[in-house]
Amino acid sequence: QESLSGKGVAAFFVFDWQIQFADQKQEFNKRPTKIGRRSLSRSISQSSTDSYGSVYSQIAASYTDSSDDETSPRDKQQKNSKGNGDFCIKNIKQADFGRREIEIAEQEMPALMALRKRAQGEKPLAGAKVVGCTHITAQTAVLMETLSALGAQCRWAACNIYSTQNEVAAALAEGGFSVFAWKGESEDDFWWCIDRCVNLEGWQPNMILDDGGDLTHWIYKKYPNMFKKIKGIVEESVTGVHRLYQLSKAGKLCVPAMNVNDSVTKQKFDNLYCCRESILDGLKRTTDVMFGGKQVVVCGYGEVGKGCCAALKAMGSIVYVTEIDPICALQACMDGFRLVKLSEVIRQVDIVITCTGNKNVVVREYLDRMKNGCIVCNMGHSNTEIDVASLRTPELTWERVRSQVDHVIWPDGKRIVLLAEGRLLNLSCSTVPTFVLSITATTQALALIELYNAPEGRYKQDVYLLPKKMDEYVASLHLPTFDAHLTELSDEQAKYLGLNKNGPFKPNYYR
Amino acid sequence: QESLSGKGVAAFFVFDWQIQFADQKQEFNKRPTKIGRRSLSRSISQSSTDSYGSVYSQIAASYTDSSDDETSPRDKQQKNSKGNGDFCIKNIKQADFGRREIEIAEQEMPALMALRKRAQGEKPLAGAKVVGCTHITAQTAVLMETLSALGAQCRWAACNIYSTQNEVAAALAEGGFSVFAWKGESEDDFWWCIDRCVNLEGWQPNMILDDGGDLTHWIYKKYPNMFKKIKGIVEESVTGVHRLYQLSKAGKLCVPAMNVNDSVTKQKFDNLYCCRESILDGLKRTTDVMFGGKQVVVCGYGEVGKGCCAALKAMGSIVYVTEIDPICALQACMDGFRLVKLSEVIRQVDIVITCTGNKNVVVREYLDRMKNGCIVCNMGHSNTEIDVASLRTPELTWERVRSQVDHVIWPDGKRIVLLAEGRLLNLSCSTVPTFVLSITATTQALALIELYNAPEGRYKQDVYLLPKKMDEYVASLHLPTFDAHLTELSDEQAKYLGLNKNGPFKPNYYR
Amino acid sequence: QESLSGKGVAAFFVFDWQIQFADQKQEFNKRPTKIGRRSLSRSISQSSTDSYGSVYSQIAASYTDSSDDETSPRDKQQKNSKGNGDFCIKNIKQADFGRREIEIAEQEMPALMALRKRAQGEKPLAGAKVVGCTHITAQTAVLMETLSALGAQCRWAACNIYSTQNEVAAALAEGGFSVFAWKGESEDDFWWCIDRCVNLEGWQPNMILDDGGDLTHWIYKKYPNMFKKIKGIVEESVTGVHRLYQLSKAGKLCVPAMNVNDSVTKQKFDNLYCCRESILDGLKRTTDVMFGGKQVVVCGYGEVGKGCCAALKAMGSIVYVTEIDPICALQACMDGFRLVKLSEVIRQVDIVITCTGNKNVVVREYLDRMKNGCIVCNMGHSNTEIDVASLRTPELTWERVRSQVDHVIWPDGKRIVLLAEGRLLNLSCSTVPTFVLSITATTQALALIELYNAPEGRYKQDVYLLPKKMDEYVASLHLPTFDAHLTELSDEQAKYLGLNKNGPFKPNYYR
Amino acid sequence: QESLSGKGVAAFFVFDWQIQFADQKQEFNKRPTKIGRRSLSRSISQSSTDSYGSVYSQIAASYTDSSDDETSPRDKQQKNSKGNGDFCIKNIKQADFGRREIEIAEQEMPALMALRKRAQGEKPLAGAKVVGCTHITAQTAVLMETLSALGAQCRWAACNIYSTQNEVAAALAEGGFSVFAWKGESEDDFWWCIDRCVNLEGWQPNMILDDGGDLTHWIYKKYPNMFKKIKGIVEESVTGVHRLYQLSKAGKLCVPAMNVNDSVTKQKFDNLYCCRESILDGLKRTTDVMFGGKQVVVCGYGEVGKGCCAALKAMGSIVYVTEIDPICALQACMDGFRLVKLSEVIRQVDIVITCTGNKNVVVREYLDRMKNGCIVCNMGHSNTEIDVASLRTPELTWERVRSQVDHVIWPDGKRIVLLAEGRLLNLSCSTVPTFVLSITATTQALALIELYNAPEGRYKQDVYLLPKKMDEYVASLHLPTFDAHLTELSDEQAKYLGLNKNGPFKPNYYR
Repeated sequence: QESLSGKGVAAFFVFDWQIQFADQKQEFNKRPTKIGRRSLSRSISQSSTDSYGSVYSQIAASYTDSSDDETSPRDKQQKNSKGNGDFCIKNIKQADFGRREIEIAEQEMPALMALRKRAQGEKPLAGAKVVGCTHITAQTAVLMETLSALGAQCRWAACNIYSTQNEVAAALAEGGFSVFAWKGESEDDFWWCIDRCVNLEGWQPNMILDDGGDLTHWIYKKYPNMFKKIKGIVEESVTGVHRLYQLSKAGKLCVPAMNVNDSVTKQKFDNLYCCRESILDGLKRTTDVMFGGKQVVVCGYGEVGKGCCAALKAMGSIVYVTEIDPICALQACMDGFRLVKLSEVIRQVDIVITCTGNKNVVVREYLDRMKNGCIVCNMGHSNTEIDVASLRTPELTWERVRSQVDHVIWPDGKRIVLLAEGRLLNLSCSTVPTFVLSITATTQALALIELYNAPEGRYKQDVYLLPKKMDEYVASLHLPTFDAHLTELSDEQAKYLGLNKNGPFKPNYYR
Repeated sequence: QESLSGKGVAAFFVFDWQIQFADQKQEFNKRPTKIGRRSLSRSISQSSTDSYGSVYSQIAASYTDSSDDETSPRDKQQKNSKGNGDFCIKNIKQADFGRREIEIAEQEMPALMALRKRAQGEKPLAGAKVVGCTHITAQTAVLMETLSALGAQCRWAACNIYSTQNEVAAALAEGGFSVFAWKGESEDDFWWCIDRCVNLEGWQPNMILDDGGDLTHWIYKKYPNMFKKIKGIVEESVTGVHRLYQLSKAGKLCVPAMNVNDSVTKQKFDNLYCCRESILDGLKRTTDVMFGGKQVVVCGYGEVGKGCCAALKAMGSIVYVTEIDPICALQACMDGFRLVKLSEVIRQVDIVITCTGNKNVVVREYLDRMKNGCIVCNMGHSNTEIDVASLRTPELTWERVRSQVDHVIWPDGKRIVLLAEGRLLNLSCSTVPTFVLSITATTQALALIELYNAPEGRYKQDVYLLPKKMDEYVASLHLPTFDAHLTELSDEQAKYLGLNKNGPFKPNYYR
Repeated sequence: QESLSGKGVAAFFVFDWQIQFADQKQEFNKRPTKIGRRSLSRSISQSSTDSYGSVYSQIAASYTDSSDDETSPRDKQQKNSKGNGDFCIKNIKQADFGRREIEIAEQEMPALMALRKRAQGEKPLAGAKVVGCTHITAQTAVLMETLSALGAQCRWAACNIYSTQNEVAAALAEGGFSVFAWKGESEDDFWWCIDRCVNLEGWQPNMILDDGGDLTHWIYKKYPNMFKKIKGIVEESVTGVHRLYQLSKAGKLCVPAMNVNDSVTKQKFDNLYCCRESILDGLKRTTDVMFGGKQVVVCGYGEVGKGCCAALKAMGSIVYVTEIDPICALQACMDGFRLVKLSEVIRQVDIVITCTGNKNVVVREYLDRMKNGCIVCNMGHSNTEIDVASLRTPELTWERVRSQVDHVIWPDGKRIVLLAEGRLLNLSCSTVPTFVLSITATTQALALIELYNAPEGRYKQDVYLLPKKMDEYVASLHLPTFDAHLTELSDEQAKYLGLNKNGPFKPNYYR
Repeated sequence: QESLSGKGVAAFFVFDWQIQFADQKQEFNKRPTKIGRRSLSRSISQSSTDSYGSVYSQIAASYTDSSDDETSPRDKQQKNSKGNGDFCIKNIKQADFGRREIEIAEQEMPALMALRKRAQGEKPLAGAKVVGCTHITAQTAVLMETLSALGAQCRWAACNIYSTQNEVAAALAEGGFSVFAWKGESEDDFWWCIDRCVNLEGWQPNMILDDGGDLTHWIYKKYPNMFKKIKGIVEESVTGVHRLYQLSKAGKLCVPAMNVNDSVTKQKFDNLYCCRESILDGLKRTTDVMFGGKQVVVCGYGEVGKGCCAALKAMGSIVYVTEIDPICALQACMDGFRLVKLSEVIRQVDIVITCTGNKNVVVREYLDRMKNGCIVCNMGHSNTEIDVASLRTPELTWERVRSQVDHVIWPDGKRIVLLAEGRLLNLSCSTVPTFVLSITATTQALALIELYNAPEGRYKQDVYLLPKKMDEYVASLHLPTFDAHLTELSDEQAKYLGLNKNGPFKPNYYR
């Protein structure tokens, strides 16, 4: 343990730990990605103590039995129909209902199903002992059952105290998975569940699948020797990846880690394609606003901003863009958007949307100058972009008009319509399509396969991006959904291009 | 240094050399970029022996005095009004006319003009002796006069035997530049001009600005010792860059080289933004086709393909896409294009456009199956994509119906409309906007400044991309054209993001 | 006049009457508009016996006090704070809450507010006694209070037994309006309320504002003599307009009537602009489907179809169109959509949308051939387009998965996702923006003013479209919402064009 | 004559006549359409004395033998190969070349070819003697030969002194048509040719096909008795239609006339679809401007404006709109364009485009305020929109930089780029696709068939629009070009909609 992580790491994490629960969001906000990208799943995780923040919690809520008994799952003794009791969930009796949810999800995750089928013969994960910590939803269940079909043993905890779908957890437990998770865990429960996943006599994980870095952190802190057997970490979230890079920089990363957050395919879907649709959906569900003719300013023209702008332009809005990066700014110009400073248009716009990954982009000064009825929302990273705190002053009145919708009222009667209290609109007020989650889950599965099967020496104690070829494979598994037919290179063409016929087709840096 | 430029390199180039003039185009076609990108300027260069292929030659042609004397410039003794005769051009008397051309170009190249202004005080190129080999056009003249304003001495030759604007060369000579170029050089003239640039007693270049690699090659071959004083090479073309990477791989690159072809800003403009417009322009000018309702297949969904597809979709065409790369294929799906194999739609489409960078994408088999009146053209790299040679068989009749437009007629009367004989449509049948050339020229200027001023050790004997920060600077210099207002980071925000307030704002690999 | 409203009419309406409640929907479906247009409001009315069908009922439901007393309003004696009891509503105590709703609606109906202001001095409706029968919502309240401000007296009933917002009715009653309406009327209540509006001693209406024709019908049937004093009818719905044209054709229309349903501005907003947004909203809220890459067939390329196609194309769907009218078909081609027969694409599409105004467009045969997971919905006129009845057979299982979403399951497990049981998606699963309702309400107000003030002889006993000039005035009143600045003709220009400077600017048939 | 038209008409036309040649353009400009619509063909005709204005003349110019003999065709005696000499054209020897032009045009005019085929059996024009006055181009030849195939005899003159394609006229003469037209007629020639068409012993026309009204005028003036045998006039141009309406209003129209200019299909293609493409083409060919990021103001949001705006928006321009009509203005808002007064944006825009049909939209005051390099052009009706005359003042310098491109230079050096001297950009600097001309020609043919075959009494001495059903037929004949498959109504559906299965499908006023 000492040799592996030493005091430095411990110190790092102790520090980390302490402020984490003091103010978890603050903590995460201190560690933004430098490049303004965002992770759908970690963003969920960030609002893990916020019962309103997560779509998963909303969805899950609909399945909650209102007459639910209040006994903690930790105090209940349950067994599945085969007599197995190595799990801790809300209610094993919900298994049938959860199974149906999983079956529906399977239909929309053809890539994982194809993976099961194709790789079944070879069992590329035979011998793998995967410990996972992610949202526990029907989509995750499809992933877990795929890993199992590929040969892996799995033990799983939730990465968010609210997002677990209890009936899915029940179906997994009934299916023989050791799941430790329920909706509405306490912080103590949270770590207890993680501990139950890893701390089992006679079983040691050799792969980690993490979403947010909490599982990795726990093993570093409590069971550092466990890393001796671990072949690699697959990490999904912006924050978790950030932590890994810090560990690596500090020379304290002791196994290879795969950053799946930044794989090309996943990024495009999480940001550009998903947000292009969810900006419209989120605004409509909350405000019923008509887009045609509205003046909108979008702060930030990265992938998220590009998606938002394209969608709103197509709906007949007049869109202005703000940017700090001249390259993205020039792209905004060429795409037909006026590039302005926020102060130039703040008095005239009907909608303000932030997607910068930055903090304090919309500050009180701007909020004061907005016109009556202006809608303000955030599609960027975390909840820092709009200075919501600045609105909590005595002269302003807050009125909750719908779930996720507040009117903030100025003394002169002016109302600002604030959505999701400045948290992510697309996670709070829209849904993440299963297809997008399918891309992520497939990426995770392939990253596990790659790390587990990589020959000695291919990966060192560092953080890696998914190899281009596997990224391409993720994409190719999703093409049948669109009845899309890929062209194959002839031998002659492959030779001409200097490429292998099966890819990779582009250099790693190609986006 | 000797070992570097020794026999190995010589051998490499001798080989290179021999086949180059045997079949220059073939030669270049053998060396595509692996990633399907393209260079506007080098593509021009590729058709350097093709008098129909270049817009520049067409434009220049309009200025040609029809009663032009036929004396070779090499046989004439000319002096400018100050008595200086260190140049070789067509006719010094055209200088006034050329000056007007340059002045018009200046108005559309605000970034270079800004660079002149901003950097004037500091003269960052003071002491630089730049030898250049590029197209000699009004835009290049603006670049050269900017380099001069920044402190550099310049000697220049043409990279293409047809593209020189004689009157611009005259204006440059009148202005004191040592220019060696005219429209319609022979191959012997071509190398003679290059030699005159570098081989001057008492003057040795310390910077190379090349477009296609011919100048670099000449110095390697003839004056390898010259590299001792050379601080760096700036190369603009796909082919030239490819050569440099080969040299580097072979350990024979003896100075730092800057690959300006692949800078983000330049790429976006050369490919996406430029082609989005030129595909429409090229098709209209040649065929007057109405786009609405037409079925079009676009082969390749890289930046060029994306531009073509977006433009045609907007004009009401129904667009199909073929791809080999599943990641690009998935993007095509999400952008609303059916992904097909060419054989699926070849019988029904009205227009076929290639933009793959590959060879033999449209082969005779497909051409045989196209319907009557189908238009076939190429927007990709070089002229290999359509197998035009396969159409030169006895049973097919060729009919030239307009400049750049051939009808190829099958025995049953079916006509295929072939544009630009399969060469690049956007260069043959459209024009490159000065704004796009401004981006390129500014990138070249900044690359020269960077290499010339870089502290010892920053650049080794390798090929580099333009630093992100300078790429951003190129972009920022072009924003005023659009009256675009960039937002500046506050100190607090910069700290939060871990960025310098002046950039770079994104990691190098961000595109 | 007797001859007009004599037995013939009575017979007509008796017939009408009898089948109306036998099968109201069937009845309405027998009378489609010939041109496939649709009325938002009447479409609501059509599903007046369907408690799930109306957005208004859903919205209103949220305000319903769950501990509501069950006493019928007809059995309660209520008075407003001024002691006035000439109304019949659910609960006068809800007036404050309703007032707030009205105030919010006022902010989004600037045209009516402007009308109040501009016309205040002149009181163009002074002396008007308007009896109305429409949905009773906050937007209607803004209309009624505007009519009042213009000088009119108003008595009002609901045109739909479910759509009344009780608290708005309360606010109106408190404000002195004689309102007879509540959410959840019986059919007997419905006619009782209408009767209370018109049958008042010492008060006779001289204007009718109707939505669906029920009020007009009641007066024809019960109080035909009342028409002697009535200056005109303003009718809003497709069905009501259809009835009026039938009356007119039969020579039995005894007063002028204004068809506001077909005014240009209203049509564009109800159909093109509103549906462009609501198709996305309706699909997202019900199915969370991702649009990118989906194959969609839209049946019908009228205004509604154009809106749906444009929106889905912009979101990255691949859209096919079916049409019967070659002119609309050619437009679909020129807009970039493949024109197909439904049978050609039914096996491959992911979403089927009907907007034809026709019946049995999607029949069982097509439903049998759809692929698993195909979404089927209707955006057209009424609920006839999808043959839902054909799905009610024993071998198919229906599963309600969400409000408004049914899975219809074939014996082989194939599931079709049927939305809103084939009723109008945009009314059942989306909302009508207040801005669209503002256009309608303003059109109604101007039609009342026109009919009331028209000089003798301008309007005969016939059905009229709103004069172009007033249609233009409706539009102009809504321009300030977009901070839009209209250009005015100079005298010279008006003369050149042969136009009055204040319009109308186009001939009546211009669309 | 007296009985038919009386002194009033004579006076009208004498007046007309006198000013017509004094200043033909002025005259035509005095008679704009009231609704801002435009006719492609008449716009050509309007500039009939302007050798730069017509595409046809440009195209035709390319076929002109430079060594052409200068003898007037009127002084030559020519016969075709069958010995027939009843024609007057430039050179009968060009017939083969013209035939090839006609054959190429046939391929792009499938509707006329289908009409030949379908109607061949019945010869619906048997006995028709058509006298025509239109542009004489390959497309017209396809029309004439179709009329002939349908049974008609034809005699033809040119409606424009420059637009005749001599080789096409030769092919027609060789084919037996009595054609009187050549490129470069004098005004005297123009009327002589028309007279030769109608004034033939033993032959009297019974149908008139006119484009501009000159032929109709000539017959009214010279041979009024001829109208006794004439069954109808088909008129194509805005101006000609305007004259007919004036005649009708004055009670002096003595035969039915068909206004084919305003048929729905033709209008959509002439204006919306054609201009959507030609605005880009016209701007590119003249200025090579890059559209991305440019600020553009489009004056007028009718069909032409809508087409221009949609195209430029799609290319990444930022588009502002001016309008006088609030309904069109509101549409511009909903389509995402800022509605402004010209004065608000005139200083900042890069391009100004007029499409209002109005006069003096861009006046000197605005031209003075434009920024350096601003491009100004006209897509609307005639050449009145830009006050070009105001630029012909001593302090401004004009510089012709290309064909159709003038730089107007202010004393301070500011340059305005004026295209086509304010005439129609799409006719001067782009081409009209044959497909658009095919729509027009098919409409003309069907109008002739309708008028010729209409039962007594269907048409009175008035101006009619083409019946909806025939308009639909024109559209349906063009669908095969797009491989478009129309859906047919079932009997049950037709009954439900109250429609005939074969149309018309919409009321006449539906657009």
